[in-house]
Amino acid sequence: MGTPYRPKITHASRPLTFAVRSMNEHGEWSDTQIAGEHPLTLYVDKREIVTLMTLGARPEALAIGYLRNQRLVKSIEEITAVQVDWETEAVAVSTRRGIQDLDGRMKKRTVTTGCGQGTIFGELMDEIDKLELPTDVYLGEEIYYALMDNVRRHDTVYKTAGAVHGCALCKGSEILMFVEDVGRHNAVDAIAGQMWLDRIEGRDKIFYTTGRLTSEMVIKCAQMEIPFLVSRSGLTQMGYEIAKKIGLTMIGRAAGKHYLLFTGESRFIKSKQTSLT
Amino acid sequence: MGTPYRPKITHASRPLTFAVRSMNEHGEWSDTQIAGEHPLTLYVDKREIVTLMTLGARPEALAIGYLRNQRLVKSIEEITAVQVDWETEAVAVSTRRGIQDLDGRMKKRTVTTGCGQGTIFGELMDEIDKLELPTDVYLGEEIYYALMDNVRRHDTVYKTAGAVHGCALCKGSEILMFVEDVGRHNAVDAIAGQMWLDRIEGRDKIFYTTGRLTSEMVIKCAQMEIPFLVSRSGLTQMGYEIAKKIGLTMIGRAAGKHYLLFTGESRFIKSKQTSLT
Repeated sequence: MGTPYRPKITHASRPLTFAVRSMNEHGEWSDTQIAGEHPLTLYVDKREIVTLMTLGARPEALAIGYLRNQRLVKSIEEITAVQVDWETEAVAVSTRRGIQDLDGRMKKRTVTTGCGQGTIFGELMDEIDKLELPTDVYLGEEIYYALMDNVRRHDTVYKTAGAVHGCALCKGSEILMFVEDVGRHNAVDAIAGQMWLDRIEGRDKIFYTTGRLTSEMVIKCAQMEIPFLVSRSGLTQMGYEIAKKIGLTMIGRAAGKHYLLFTGESRFIKSKQTSLT
Repeated sequence: MGTPYRPKITHASRPLTFAVRSMNEHGEWSDTQIAGEHPLTLYVDKREIVTLMTLGARPEALAIGYLRNQRLVKSIEEITAVQVDWETEAVAVSTRRGIQDLDGRMKKRTVTTGCGQGTIFGELMDEIDKLELPTDVYLGEEIYYALMDNVRRHDTVYKTAGAVHGCALCKGSEILMFVEDVGRHNAVDAIAGQMWLDRIEGRDKIFYTTGRLTSEMVIKCAQMEIPFLVSRSGLTQMGYEIAKKIGLTMIGRAAGKHYLLFTGESRFIKSKQTSLT
């Protein structure tokens, strides 16, 4: 067996919050915590790809997940090294064989709703038809509520400083990883990168996000083969249509005991209601 | 005098909300309103630039504002026509003389925090030093509260369907325009475009946004020469640092009577407090 392959990798996270002065409505000045935001330029085999604005919590996983979700790299084995250097605000990724047709693939750019990433949207939309989500996994309402309770208790940058989005990869009611970033596309990408590093499959997982359920979020969730997507926010029309088309189980407006289940209801097992009257 | 120049322009907004079915925690299915989200591919002189995911409320102003904020077009006079066709999901912009060095300028891409637009960030940061915001305009606390009250009363897609960000251009306590979009970068761009169309200057205005105060938001506000930026959300470190550097008057966490003034306090006139004790 042996340990699974890992690229040579740094662990260079940044301080996540900073104190600045602010004056409130009573005219009082005090320290307020705000979220970090740093430019990080991604180079693949010494070629500049993109600059990401990030909180800096998991820059290596972010770089890997960006390349994964943009379909620029096909497997973690193709990556030999991921090295973050905050002094030059750069992450250098080395690959075994380079990226095929990088010029052609970087030409088309889509500014996706939440947060454009130059996603090659046309190609992604073509891929949607090929995506197959598992139909033999289920989420019980009680497990769902237990998970929401764990999410609520989770210690977050958001509670301290706001201005970040959080995403979690979950199994049953357990949070396997929780990543926050100033852009929620970054938080999703960092989870996708960490899943590759840790050899975690999506097929029996639940993806939770504080952000809205837009086309981009639904597509990324489906690309990771995760059949459940839960958000405390609302959804957009394209997010809804794509989720319906691929049969994703999508829950929005999750807050306390309230939720709205929009699509993929066959995977959701509602508890029997005991009438109060 | 005569009417100011206007490009030939369509007025092709889309329906903003749609009803879909959802099941709540009581097992009841009902109609829920969700926000529209449509791809809109921008062509300049028949060349494809980018695909924007948009609510579709003001697609023409969005296209103009995108070109303005990306510094691809220098004035409204350079644009001869803006034509939206939802059947082909395209907006065609025609210019008098084309865009100089388009290839070079589209090469560098930055995914900005909230919502990357392929902003040519390096160049923008160079420009920051040149930006000068007026120092002879002031905002009184009572006017500020009256404006917040108007914003709260404003009828919005957000109230009906959620999942959108809103931006407003304001003068004193009056809302001059209010634009919502599924991406807040789009809402800012649409306001920038409408300001060009209507020949509105930024120097005596207030910019309000429901979104976070990130580097991108602060830079765009300053590019429009607007000295006041107000948000109900929090801010990021780079948003703070840039605002401080350029002397923008920035207020965050605006909710009810509460606010936090972070930078540019010399333009903010606090009302005299009457002690309750």
